[in-house]
Amino acid sequence: MTEHLSRRDVDFLLYEWLDTLELPQRERFAEHSRETFDGILDLSEDMATKLFAPHNKTADRTEPQIGPDGKVVLIPEIGEALKAFGDAGLIAASFDEEIGGMQLPNTVSRASTTIFQAANAATTSYAFLTVGNANLLAKYGTPDQIDTWVRPMLEGRYFGTMCLSEPQAGSSLADITTKAAPAPDGTYRITGTKMWISGGDHELTENIVHLVLAKAPGGGPGVKGISLFIVPKFLPDGTRNDVALVGLNHKMGNRGTTNTLLNFGDGSFGDGTGAVGYLVGELHRGLFYMFNMMNEARIGVGFLATALGYAGFQKSLEYAKVRTQGRPVDAKGPDVPPVPIIDHPDVMRMMLAQKSYAEGALALGLYCARLLDEEQTAPDDEARARAHLLLEVLTPIAKSWPSQWCLEANSLAIQVHGGYGYTTEFDVEQFYRDNRLNPIHEGAHGIHGLDLLGRKVVMDGGRGLAVLTETIGETIDRARSAGGDAAGYAEALAAQTARLGEVTAAVWAPGDPALALANATAYLEATGHIVVAWLWLDQFLAASGPDDFYAGKRAATKYFFTYELPKTTAQLDLLAALDRTTMDTDPAWL
Amino acid sequence: MTEHLSRRDVDFLLYEWLDTLELPQRERFAEHSRETFDGILDLSEDMATKLFAPHNKTADRTEPQIGPDGKVVLIPEIGEALKAFGDAGLIAASFDEEIGGMQLPNTVSRASTTIFQAANAATTSYAFLTVGNANLLAKYGTPDQIDTWVRPMLEGRYFGTMCLSEPQAGSSLADITTKAAPAPDGTYRITGTKMWISGGDHELTENIVHLVLAKAPGGGPGVKGISLFIVPKFLPDGTRNDVALVGLNHKMGNRGTTNTLLNFGDGSFGDGTGAVGYLVGELHRGLFYMFNMMNEARIGVGFLATALGYAGFQKSLEYAKVRTQGRPVDAKGPDVPPVPIIDHPDVMRMMLAQKSYAEGALALGLYCARLLDEEQTAPDDEARARAHLLLEVLTPIAKSWPSQWCLEANSLAIQVHGGYGYTTEFDVEQFYRDNRLNPIHEGAHGIHGLDLLGRKVVMDGGRGLAVLTETIGETIDRARSAGGDAAGYAEALAAQTARLGEVTAAVWAPGDPALALANATAYLEATGHIVVAWLWLDQFLAASGPDDFYAGKRAATKYFFTYELPKTTAQLDLLAALDRTTMDTDPAWL
Repeated sequence: MTEHLSRRDVDFLLYEWLDTLELPQRERFAEHSRETFDGILDLSEDMATKLFAPHNKTADRTEPQIGPDGKVVLIPEIGEALKAFGDAGLIAASFDEEIGGMQLPNTVSRASTTIFQAANAATTSYAFLTVGNANLLAKYGTPDQIDTWVRPMLEGRYFGTMCLSEPQAGSSLADITTKAAPAPDGTYRITGTKMWISGGDHELTENIVHLVLAKAPGGGPGVKGISLFIVPKFLPDGTRNDVALVGLNHKMGNRGTTNTLLNFGDGSFGDGTGAVGYLVGELHRGLFYMFNMMNEARIGVGFLATALGYAGFQKSLEYAKVRTQGRPVDAKGPDVPPVPIIDHPDVMRMMLAQKSYAEGALALGLYCARLLDEEQTAPDDEARARAHLLLEVLTPIAKSWPSQWCLEANSLAIQVHGGYGYTTEFDVEQFYRDNRLNPIHEGAHGIHGLDLLGRKVVMDGGRGLAVLTETIGETIDRARSAGGDAAGYAEALAAQTARLGEVTAAVWAPGDPALALANATAYLEATGHIVVAWLWLDQFLAASGPDDFYAGKRAATKYFFTYELPKTTAQLDLLAALDRTTMDTDPAWL
Repeated sequence: MTEHLSRRDVDFLLYEWLDTLELPQRERFAEHSRETFDGILDLSEDMATKLFAPHNKTADRTEPQIGPDGKVVLIPEIGEALKAFGDAGLIAASFDEEIGGMQLPNTVSRASTTIFQAANAATTSYAFLTVGNANLLAKYGTPDQIDTWVRPMLEGRYFGTMCLSEPQAGSSLADITTKAAPAPDGTYRITGTKMWISGGDHELTENIVHLVLAKAPGGGPGVKGISLFIVPKFLPDGTRNDVALVGLNHKMGNRGTTNTLLNFGDGSFGDGTGAVGYLVGELHRGLFYMFNMMNEARIGVGFLATALGYAGFQKSLEYAKVRTQGRPVDAKGPDVPPVPIIDHPDVMRMMLAQKSYAEGALALGLYCARLLDEEQTAPDDEARARAHLLLEVLTPIAKSWPSQWCLEANSLAIQVHGGYGYTTEFDVEQFYRDNRLNPIHEGAHGIHGLDLLGRKVVMDGGRGLAVLTETIGETIDRARSAGGDAAGYAEALAAQTARLGEVTAAVWAPGDPALALANATAYLEATGHIVVAWLWLDQFLAASGPDDFYAGKRAATKYFFTYELPKTTAQLDLLAALDRTTMDTDPAWL
């Protein structure tokens, strides 16, 4: 059977490219080694194949329903898979040992989760939302909150959610209206409606720990008034909290994950004064805490998109090698036997594109995970600060680039299959539907352009962009020294990186933020392609061996530099021109 | 309620741009006038709105099933809508009066059909497949075949299909294995299996007229041995012919149209010697006849993609104008009320992109329909020949460009809706699923690149490309004379058109077809963007009035020249470099 993710590629990225085996030399990871890392990856592959992949299509065909008792009905395989996942300790993989974790490096735990996501994106989401929630509380919760909520989540007995959006406020958190009123006992009463809550209700676990953004009295207007609360489905004494499932959203894809509309404090399970909420950290700092989780969630969305793109790549690669049809342009004639379709240059183009998107996105994601390990455990402060800054700059790209291009990979996977790919008999149409979610949630695509150009590259007086450029420059220097094809790629990358710097300065030069940000999405996409070209060149330098695997890495690099990187010129030209088309068009004209 | 297609735009294209009112001066259309044209368009809008649009979502949710009696079960609304469509004479709209048609110009009948397609792509497919089938038989059938099969199709009593693909042979017709054996009575016995047959079985009509490609004895190998047969579901005496429904394909979208696997002559309804087939035209010329229909079908697929892109554009435009969220970059602060999302430049970008794709595709399609009218009715031979040649060159673009970019428009329509767009509550996710079919059928995307670069632009010693370039040149000349923005666009278009000519010569210069065609898809996509830029400039020249509608046309032109046309430079560079990446990559490396 097809691997959903190539283990050879994962091993290459971890051990030949990202120097993951350096990490066990650090105190936090001292108990780890190649052996423990491989053990986790082997376990992940085994469980993903046996428990997650088999019900991926079933869950898509059997959408979550609300039963007559008002409870969510899921196919049982989802619960079984997640139970085994929790029992294996995988929810706690990267957490501290003192709260029950394995203290795995993020680099390795992300590789593990991607294996699961490629096998079954929807089922894994319950677990990874829980990891994000638990990470936040482990960092900002009180010891008591950690004992009460985090430990059971790490054991897989409770699952977690994040409740930000409301029906009228998705990207615009300043406009949320959910309220938190202080109660005499120090808790809060939460009232309001939250929309798009993934994993918002189900019977998979004993309890569900909602992290809810709400406005408590005394905060400023807009985002300043926002605080963060733990609002569990069941209170610690076992009584039901006033959190009510209003409805399930029915979606084009990602159907195995319940997506809910929740009412807090509407009286369904209480006196109507509000659901009980426990403040996390300080009042009015909710958005700060949530952004911590959101950065992680954004990188997580990138991995989800990557996993789907990768799974489609693998499926269509297998198909393209066995499906025969047509003949080479220069060897036509009915007496010539049909060839495997991968022998047609246009099919090879679609395969190389998918490879460059899926493996490029995985490299980007694992590079970010490695940065997170650096940020948390690098021996000196400067290295930590540098890793932090680079990760800040890369986060919008790590979310948006895979969401855009691994979706495109899924479209190509369908195309390679021809009509068969459009049928539900094959897997690739589901990947395409599942992946269409990723440019929407955790910040819609355009939001990340504003984040990158409006905040990240200009942060610390421009240090954000500088650290990225310097890091790319190190690869360029090594590639120049290597000579040959690498040196050619280095020149192309150097030119586009230099241009990116010029363009960044040019768009900010007039001092008009609205004008500077008018084409922030083009900026995001151009930067994303430059970043991924850089990571391909960096992989190229690590892939000098003679075997097929390395030749494949070199071919994908060649593809990316030949077909993809040149696309950025038109985007950078557009930015340099400070084009006002989108600002100057009157909606009435359309 | 939202129009699915803007009537103002249709009127502009027909009457202000394509000079459709010149056509009634020709003998064939002498009974027509603006009044009859408007009558058809009014009727189409009315019927599309009342009978087709209301069940679009229902049909998607209620896929065709095979009932216990082996018959196909569809929701009744499909039959009701198609009955009314046939009764109104719309299947026969463009056919000769002497066989019951209205002799409408293709330009007008295509505008009419697009209105229906935008309201309900799947239901309309039954009718438009029938039109294509009837067109072929009206042209190549005997008078007796026309009476027996074409007339009932034009009345809507019979529907038609085209049966080309087989499970092992989609794009590669040389490999079909369906056989035709001559019978003593002059008919043939057809045996074999046909795959992906849209409308291949149903109970909507008294009979189904299959046009089947099969190999009869005595033809050469490969495509030379292919002949074309009429194989009806019921024979003229009312007995069942041996055509058996083996199964329905379950698809990601376009679910209202049955898509079938059919067995011919397997003994289900006969003695196993074969289904009765009637030869169309001469033996072994089947592919020639079918290509006649296929050209029409390909332009039809372009219209289908266009209609879906257009419907999504209209839905998301309505949404973007009423949904409020967020504030302008230069007017933040919680006291500022949220603005309609179309006020955000990135949302405006997505709207202008959709407008430029959907309206650009509609202009392209109607321009081709107008060329078909020229080919059939222009007063002088030279104009007819010229129209024929230009239409040949544009056909692969008219199929592939809308299939690619109106799908992208549908993705943007989802994005504009945010999470709501991903739910089945709204319409846009269905458009996206429906439209994903169009780059696959009637020649997969890559096939059209081979057709354009390998045949069309080099036909008649290069006259194919020359006639396109000359026609674009006429618009460039007028735009230069007009001055202002038009002159600027003219220079950009002239540069890319000249480059296209150079690149075409360069790829063929080495005399190596495999190398020349290695990047034929990039050639197709670059040419498509240049063609649509040309048609936008041509619309711009016709849109000089002061009202909002014309301002919108000018804004979309500006968008296309600023954001889209520059993309072709990277594609043309790739082609000019005669890049061998896809030819030189060994599949074993992947």
